[in-house]
This record gives sequence, structure tokens and C-alpha cells, in this order.
Amino acid sequence: MMNDEPIIPSSRIEAFSDGVIAIIITIMVFDLKIQGIPDDKNVWRELAGLLPKILSYAASFVMIAIMWVNHHQLFHQIHRTDRKLLWYNLHLLFWMSLIPFAANFIGANPLLWQASFVYGILFALNALAFSYLRTYTVFTGLLHEAINLEQHYKIRRKNKVAISIYLSAAVLSMVSVYIAFVLFLVVPAMYFIPEKIIHKQS
Amino acid sequence: MMNDEPIIPSSRIEAFSDGVIAIIITIMVFDLKIQGIPDDKNVWRELAGLLPKILSYAASFVMIAIMWVNHHQLFHQIHRTDRKLLWYNLHLLFWMSLIPFAANFIGANPLLWQASFVYGILFALNALAFSYLRTYTVFTGLLHEAINLEQHYKIRRKNKVAISIYLSAAVLSMVSVYIAFVLFLVVPAMYFIPEKIIHKQS
Amino acid sequence: MMNDEPIIPSSRIEAFSDGVIAIIITIMVFDLKIQGIPDDKNVWRELAGLLPKILSYAASFVMIAIMWVNHHQLFHQIHRTDRKLLWYNLHLLFWMSLIPFAANFIGANPLLWQASFVYGILFALNALAFSYLRTYTVFTGLLHEAINLEQHYKIRRKNKVAISIYLSAAVLSMVSVYIAFVLFLVVPAMYFIPEKIIHKQS
Amino acid sequence: MMNDEPIIPSSRIEAFSDGVIAIIITIMVFDLKIQGIPDDKNVWRELAGLLPKILSYAASFVMIAIMWVNHHQLFHQIHRTDRKLLWYNLHLLFWMSLIPFAANFIGANPLLWQASFVYGILFALNALAFSYLRTYTVFTGLLHEAINLEQHYKIRRKNKVAISIYLSAAVLSMVSVYIAFVLFLVVPAMYFIPEKIIHKQS
Repeated sequence: MMNDEPIIPSSRIEAFSDGVIAIIITIMVFDLKIQGIPDDKNVWRELAGLLPKILSYAASFVMIAIMWVNHHQLFHQIHRTDRKLLWYNLHLLFWMSLIPFAANFIGANPLLWQASFVYGILFALNALAFSYLRTYTVFTGLLHEAINLEQHYKIRRKNKVAISIYLSAAVLSMVSVYIAFVLFLVVPAMYFIPEKIIHKQS
Repeated sequence: MMNDEPIIPSSRIEAFSDGVIAIIITIMVFDLKIQGIPDDKNVWRELAGLLPKILSYAASFVMIAIMWVNHHQLFHQIHRTDRKLLWYNLHLLFWMSLIPFAANFIGANPLLWQASFVYGILFALNALAFSYLRTYTVFTGLLHEAINLEQHYKIRRKNKVAISIYLSAAVLSMVSVYIAFVLFLVVPAMYFIPEKIIHKQS
Repeated sequence: MMNDEPIIPSSRIEAFSDGVIAIIITIMVFDLKIQGIPDDKNVWRELAGLLPKILSYAASFVMIAIMWVNHHQLFHQIHRTDRKLLWYNLHLLFWMSLIPFAANFIGANPLLWQASFVYGILFALNALAFSYLRTYTVFTGLLHEAINLEQHYKIRRKNKVAISIYLSAAVLSMVSVYIAFVLFLVVPAMYFIPEKIIHKQS
Repeated sequence: MMNDEPIIPSSRIEAFSDGVIAIIITIMVFDLKIQGIPDDKNVWRELAGLLPKILSYAASFVMIAIMWVNHHQLFHQIHRTDRKLLWYNLHLLFWMSLIPFAANFIGANPLLWQASFVYGILFALNALAFSYLRTYTVFTGLLHEAINLEQHYKIRRKNKVAISIYLSAAVLSMVSVYIAFVLFLVVPAMYFIPEKIIHKQS
């Protein structure tokens, strides 16, 4: 390992990531719009027509929120950064930034299997990118020494399960989009509570 | 209370929340647009047609600003964070992120009672989510010890009044949207000045 | 002066303001769009048609940038904050957040005097809001003690000149929009270099 | 060199720049939209039609990411700031903020040489603005003293090459847009790894 590089604090990486994630999670709401001026009779129908978009927004919000919580927790443990970490993080942000596209696609076309397919593949890529980021930080010694690695092995296993579920959802959407919808809910449920950090000496 | 978790500083939660709230409060302005190229004769009429949107923007801006000020003040008192706090905060941000949708709906259809209904319900949910966040932080001992809890009980009572007013506005919009409009103005007026923090020893 | 309030650091106000200003200054670019698919013959004409929008974007960018630099410099001198400062700052951000609307209006309708009128009035309100913010911080003793107030009197005079120029531009746009355009360029030129902070003892 | 100015920390400049860059890099994704409701037959064709936009998004994302990494690295070395640095930085942000416009233009009209022309010119201006910022910081003594200037001379040479390539791409797009596309890929490849900072004493 080369040690002649200065230790760049992780604070600016976190601030930039927070900015990008804040934008991603928020501006999806701009697809929620009632076109034209409804009258008293068709307004509930128009609102009901937004329901798939609202559900897609809520589901995507929860998944991005989970990723942010885990990102928060991972970077909280990072002791020093390097150039490659910047790029692993930017790689994750790239796939995250495509979530509004997939959320809009599935929200506008909930029964089209291709929409669930794209949604599943994209989240599998996101989980994979997060997994790369975590593996790099853990195995290059960027974490505080006191952090128990056992914990990270457990998260890695969980992460592999998540990737498998997303890929299965993508494939099974050809059979029925409802199977995909159920699988999309399994991962957030599984991830909802981020793993505890176990300090060696405490 | 479990004490084996590391104390995560509240700064990144605040930074992320600030990012999300900054986006929510700002991009609503993008609904303020004059369609097409008006000529010298109809331009004032076009601008006047924007008035409900501008009023809805201004009212929503003020309400989000109040929430930010209170969020600012609450987090300023927080001594330590935990996972659940992250989720109570994300839960609040979710409901806040829907405000641009409701503001657009009521701005485009000011006389439609359903718009006021949706607007009232959404703000009641926002006030409820803020109340959950506050209650959790106060009763789980996340605040600095020197903070006087008496103050928080007073805010909680005020918060319950706000929720009742928003729900009343939603229901009464069926009678007249103007009653709802007046009630929507009562809460900001009531909340305008955030509660003072009383330190036990000072 | 009441001293029982805790000293809230200015960092979160700055961070939130930076977020809002970053969004305002950036998303105006989204009005720069070539509609439809131009062919080889009409593409330059389409790009030329964007010129008023690009100029309006550039001018608004510079004016917001000047406001940010001055905001930066003012808050750098602030020693302590209070509730009213939050609201003076939010008041400024409200008027700043309307700049994209005015920039879009004048960019799409450069020769309509009403567009220059709205643009001029809005910038006068922005300069006024900034002036209120500055006056409050200076005269409520929120600044570091070492800051020379002489400097702030000079800036206030300059600020009054700016407000007069913007109002004149608004009024004179009824005579000719080109007079207004020239006046809109005078203020940035005048403000370009922020005032130097003079420390009493140095 | 005038020393009567207070040393403004670079943190707020970085935070504001991060906000602006986060918005620029993220909201380009909003051009990725499938118009209308496709049916099972034409959905792949619609998605394939998005390919140029997705490639333009990905390429622009990578280029902005490189600029952010280099910005990060440059500001990490900055010891003190001054007013001119603020403006050199805002000048860079102005040209960066136009990238979504050029990315949208080339994504919607990939085979139009004018789109590649505009894209090439804009990136040349961005590289030039970054070069100005770097030269100013290096030669006005804003860096930490321990930083080896040799490194910056090397980066400047690389920067000149990048500007030449972008200008060549713009000109050669008149011959063939495919030549321009290849040249657009050369610069990121060349810049991908930011230059190492060499500390004099280490």
C-alpha cells in the first residue's frame, strides 16, 4: 500500500454524496402531477390514476433512504480515504442517479413487465455497486481499526441475497409483474434496520 | 437503553435534511411559468392567472421554512443520535417531499375542494411526523441534559392544535375552500416564532 | 438584549442557504432547451433563438453569484445568530427563489416591457431583503466585535443606489426595454467586487 | 500581496461548489424519459431510442465526476482563500452549469455535427476555466507551502492537451461526428486518475 498520499478526510465525499442523494430522493416527486385542470367529477379518478406513481415514488424513496442510512453508517467507520474510494463512491452514485428514471418508467407503466425488468436490473446494479464500495473500504484498511470485520462479512452475505432477489424479480417479471412487486418489497424489509457496528474493544 | 452503539454525530443528518428541504422549498418555483409567448395585451391577464400558484408557493414556502427552523432548533439540542432517529427523520422528509405535489395541485386548482382536502391532510401528516420525531428525541434521552423538558410539552400541545386545525381545514374544504384557506394561515401564524429553549441552569 | 438564548452557530444557516442558492443558480439552465429535433438547416437559427434565454441565464447567474459572495462575506463576520436572523435570511431566500421565474419570463419574452418590469421589481426586492438582513446583523450586535462598522455604512449606501437603479429600470422599461437592459448591467458591475472587511485592530 | 484581508476558510466555497456540482450531475437524468405509454411491442424500441441520451448522460456524468475529483483535490491543498478565488471558482461553475444543456442537445441529436461542436466548445471552456482556477491558486500562493509545484506544472501541460483535444473534436465534428465521439472519450481516459500530490518533505 502506498503511504505517500495525504489523508483526505471523508467529510467532503459525504457532503457531495448527501447532495446527490438528496436531489435523487426529492425530485422524483416532480413526476407526480395532475395534467390539465380536472373538474369536480373526474378529480378522484385523476388522483387514483396517480396511485401507481405514488407507490413507485414511496418504494423508491424507502430504498434510497436505506442506501443513504447504510452509506452514512459505512462512511462513519471510514478512517481515511483515497482516490479509488472516490471512484467507487461515484460509481455507486451513478447507478443511484438512474433510479428516478426507472421509478418514472414503472410508475407510468406499472403493468408492463419491461418496466419491472429495468427496475429490478437497476437495483441489482445499485446493490452490486454498494457491495464493491463496501468490499473496497473493508479490505483496503480504510476503516477505523477498532471496527469488527465479522459484521461486514454478514452484511456482504445479506447483500448477495439482495442482488439475487432483484435479479429474480427482473426475470420473474416476465411471468407476472405482481411476483416482481412482492420481491421488490422483500429487500427493503430485509435491509430496513442497518447492521450494528461492533467495536472490538467495548 | 443499549449503549454499545457508537455515538453518530447529528451533523450529517442535518446536512442531508438541509439538502432535501432546500430542494423541496426551491423547486416548487418551477411551476411558476407563463406558457407560450404572451403579447402586450394579455400579459397582465397571464400574470394574474399565476396568482393562485404564487400564493400557494408563498404559503408552502413559509410552512416549509417554519419546519426547517423548528428542525434546526430541535437538532441543535440533540446530543446523540441512533438508527431510529434516522428513520423518524426520513419519515418526516418523506411527507415534506410531497408538499410540492400538493402545492402544485392547489395552485392549479384553487377552487377545487379536493385540492384543499389533499393539502390539509398532507400538512396534518407532516405535523404528525414532526411530532413523532420530537417525541422520540425527547423521551429517548437524545437531548442534552440541560434542556428543560417543560418546553417540549408545551410544543407538543401546540403541535396537537396544529394537527387538529389542518384536519378541520381538510374536512371544512367540502363546505367552502375559503374556510380552509383561512385555517391554512392560522397555523403558520401560530408557529411563526419557534419556542424558546430553556436551559435548566441559566 | 435577551441573553438566555443559546448561541446557535451560523454554520447550518450557511449550509442551508448554500443549498437553496446552489439550486436556484443551477436549475435555471433547464429552460435552455431546443424543442424538437432540428435538422442541419435550422439548427443555428434554433440556437440563435436561445440567445435571449442564454443572456438572461448568464446575467441572473452573475447577480445570484454576487449575492452569494456577499452572503458568504456577511455570514463570515457573524459571531452569533438568533431566531430573527433565521427569518431575515429566509425572507431573502424567498425573493431569491423567484429569480428563476423572472429570468425565464424575460428570457422567453425579451422585448416585452412587462418582463423587464417584473425583473427589475424582483431584483429591487432582493436588494431590499439583503439590506434588511445586513442592517439587522450589524445593528443587533451579531457581528464579531473587531469588525469595522464604517464598512457597512458604505455598503448600505451602495445598496440604496442598487435598489434605485433596479426600480428605475422597472419604470423605464415602459419607455424602452433597452434602457432597462443597460441598467440591469450597471448593478453587477458596481457590485462585482465585494467590499473589503476592515478589522479595527489590524 | 495584501495581508489585511481575513483568511476565509475554503469550506464554504467547497460546500457551495459541491451543491452546484451535485445538482448539475444529477438532474441531467430528467431528460431520460419515455414519452407516452408504450405497449408491449414498441417498448424496447422506445428504450433503444433513449440510448444516445443514456450514453450522453453517462459520458457527461463521468466528465463532471472527474472535474469534481480534481476540484476536491485542488481545494484540499488550498491554505487560504480570497475574493478572486471565489470568482474564478464561480466562473468555472458557470461553464459547468451549461453541461446539462449541451448533454441534452447532443443526446437528442447525436448525429447533428452542430451538437458535437457545441459539446466540444463547452468542454474546452470548462477545461480552460479549471486551468485559470488552478493557475491562480498556484501562483498567488494560496496553497499549503509543503505542496510541490512541479506537480501542478505537469497538470497544466495535461490541461492544455485536453483543451486542444476538445477544440479538435469541435472542429472535426464537421467532418464526422464519430471522430468527435472518439476524441470525447480520450480526455476522460487521460484524466481518469487525478495527479498525485507530492509533498516536499515526505
